[in-house]
Amino acid sequence: MIATMIDTVGFAAPSAEAPLGPFAFTRREPGPTDVHIDILFCGVCHSDLHTARAEWAGTVYPCVPGHEIVGRVVATGAAVKGFAKGDLVGVGCMVDSCQQCASCAEGLEQYCERGMTGTYNSPDKHTGGVTYGGYSKDIVVDEKFVLRIPDGLDPAAAAPLLCAGITTWSPLRHWNAGKGTKVGVVGLGGLGHMAIKLAHALGAHVVLFTTSPDKRADALALGADEVVISRDAEEMAARAGTLDFIINTVAAPHNLDPFLSALKRDGVMTLVGAPAEPHPSPTVFNLIMGRRSLAGSLIGGIAETQEMLDFCGKHGITAEIEMIPIQRINEAYERMLKSDVKYRFVIDMSSLGTV
Amino acid sequence: MIATMIDTVGFAAPSAEAPLGPFAFTRREPGPTDVHIDILFCGVCHSDLHTARAEWAGTVYPCVPGHEIVGRVVATGAAVKGFAKGDLVGVGCMVDSCQQCASCAEGLEQYCERGMTGTYNSPDKHTGGVTYGGYSKDIVVDEKFVLRIPDGLDPAAAAPLLCAGITTWSPLRHWNAGKGTKVGVVGLGGLGHMAIKLAHALGAHVVLFTTSPDKRADALALGADEVVISRDAEEMAARAGTLDFIINTVAAPHNLDPFLSALKRDGVMTLVGAPAEPHPSPTVFNLIMGRRSLAGSLIGGIAETQEMLDFCGKHGITAEIEMIPIQRINEAYERMLKSDVKYRFVIDMSSLGTV
Repeated sequence: MIATMIDTVGFAAPSAEAPLGPFAFTRREPGPTDVHIDILFCGVCHSDLHTARAEWAGTVYPCVPGHEIVGRVVATGAAVKGFAKGDLVGVGCMVDSCQQCASCAEGLEQYCERGMTGTYNSPDKHTGGVTYGGYSKDIVVDEKFVLRIPDGLDPAAAAPLLCAGITTWSPLRHWNAGKGTKVGVVGLGGLGHMAIKLAHALGAHVVLFTTSPDKRADALALGADEVVISRDAEEMAARAGTLDFIINTVAAPHNLDPFLSALKRDGVMTLVGAPAEPHPSPTVFNLIMGRRSLAGSLIGGIAETQEMLDFCGKHGITAEIEMIPIQRINEAYERMLKSDVKYRFVIDMSSLGTV
Repeated sequence: MIATMIDTVGFAAPSAEAPLGPFAFTRREPGPTDVHIDILFCGVCHSDLHTARAEWAGTVYPCVPGHEIVGRVVATGAAVKGFAKGDLVGVGCMVDSCQQCASCAEGLEQYCERGMTGTYNSPDKHTGGVTYGGYSKDIVVDEKFVLRIPDGLDPAAAAPLLCAGITTWSPLRHWNAGKGTKVGVVGLGGLGHMAIKLAHALGAHVVLFTTSPDKRADALALGADEVVISRDAEEMAARAGTLDFIINTVAAPHNLDPFLSALKRDGVMTLVGAPAEPHPSPTVFNLIMGRRSLAGSLIGGIAETQEMLDFCGKHGITAEIEMIPIQRINEAYERMLKSDVKYRFVIDMSSLGTV
């Protein structure tokens, strides 16, 4: 049998400077363990913008971003056991990993020692080129990297769970956020609003830190127990030594010290945003006094992504979204840069039919 | 009965700029829970120099440094149960804490929420002034902050265990250094040489990172399994992702990234030196990729200090020292600034008799 490539269409950045536009390309014919997915929705992550505009090193053009994918299974390879045609499924930030190393064995494929394969702009072992992401009509993914979307969740609003959800869930779970803990969330954007919802549903007392007083009502509605204006030195000082864990979602360089000071002894602040320029260096005294840690965390493994989705299904948790047709993606990027979105853009992929 | 103050003598810094010189002062009459100690030896810590020269905020003059104290019990208060006249004892970096907070209750008095009382230059609740440290003939300390020096250890070489020893022991234990773990030690000085000895005795595979190739032989003799010249980018790159834990003893500002890169997934680098100027800011990617942590640690609690001393007694571990009379303390400070000591100066306090 001769493998037949799947013709598809998407939106790609042709260069760092040019806007995204229509791009016709092919997906591989599904192999024995592959799942062919008709993409319904794709969330818009800041990483998409950073990569499309070459703000991080190594963008290969044309670049098709998108790693918050929800769609329906169109076809499955002969050996696929977990999925069938018609299933509502998701794909997140990864589509492959070595499956051999200690991290893969522990279900932490995001830390694959040979390097996981990102859903876009990663070397693609099937095509020899780079991977193309979810701003497209179709995708073909090994079933190990396909997630089940629980019944009862709005498919469009579930899409951001695949990146924003797992990126906050994984550190919240790893550092034991839950009943009896006080968790700080720095920043109320795509990641921050998921962190509030998830930490609240896990039973933690949630303190949102924001520079914007006008986000107070939203934060409380999302599940925060307290809102602290982080530019207010008095409010910050009043929180010194009170938090078990902080998830810091702000990628823009900022002073980490007031947040480190808010941690209890043995508290941990985890960064999940990667700034293009480094943060000002934290004061060593703030780490030494209280045995505090500054950590980082990268998305999450496949097993814990499924765990998060099942948890969201049980608790009825999805992202707050604004739906856009793909033709408005460039405008959406500009609005994201102004934090003008509550709280995640999601592309309605049916709009691609009109390209 | 009228309390009688104890006349004593020591060496004090009269100001930030002047050399240390003889200083007559008094110690309090021992209260019911106090132990009066005749100081035999006192190690010389970098903190002594920083404080004497007001390189950290808040030095009160005259300042009597010294918190690596070994001596013999001269007298005990009526309620003292753990010590008797003639016992060989130690005093480290703390002489008091609130004894009420969660940290004190857990035996982590160094993180006392009301602030522990440092052995020198801390508010002294007995005198209303500041505490005077171990560069002196006598000291009076509550028995809760007095340690037993195990038989068989050289008393002079045991003195640095009270700060350099516990400052490295506490994080090694907290982050589970031991058999089957690979532990990095950054810097071979007073703290670094203790970290090597202790990590080696705990069963860890020890990798010393140093900028000085001429320290290789010493490091191996002290118990390091490998020595890496940290200025050699190739040697550093070869260690990427190999270490479970790093204890970084270098207080001078330096690039932390090559060391963070040397950690495995979930690895922790703990800073135990506090630079006057901050380190260059670490790259967030180095934390995110591998869920690594940058932490800090402050000396250790009283119970774990005793545990460390007992461990050292069992394994015959003391510091490598150069003994000096107190009259050479100013010269010793100058040599410390040039790292010209292998590896800790210890003052023979009998030299005070000739003041």
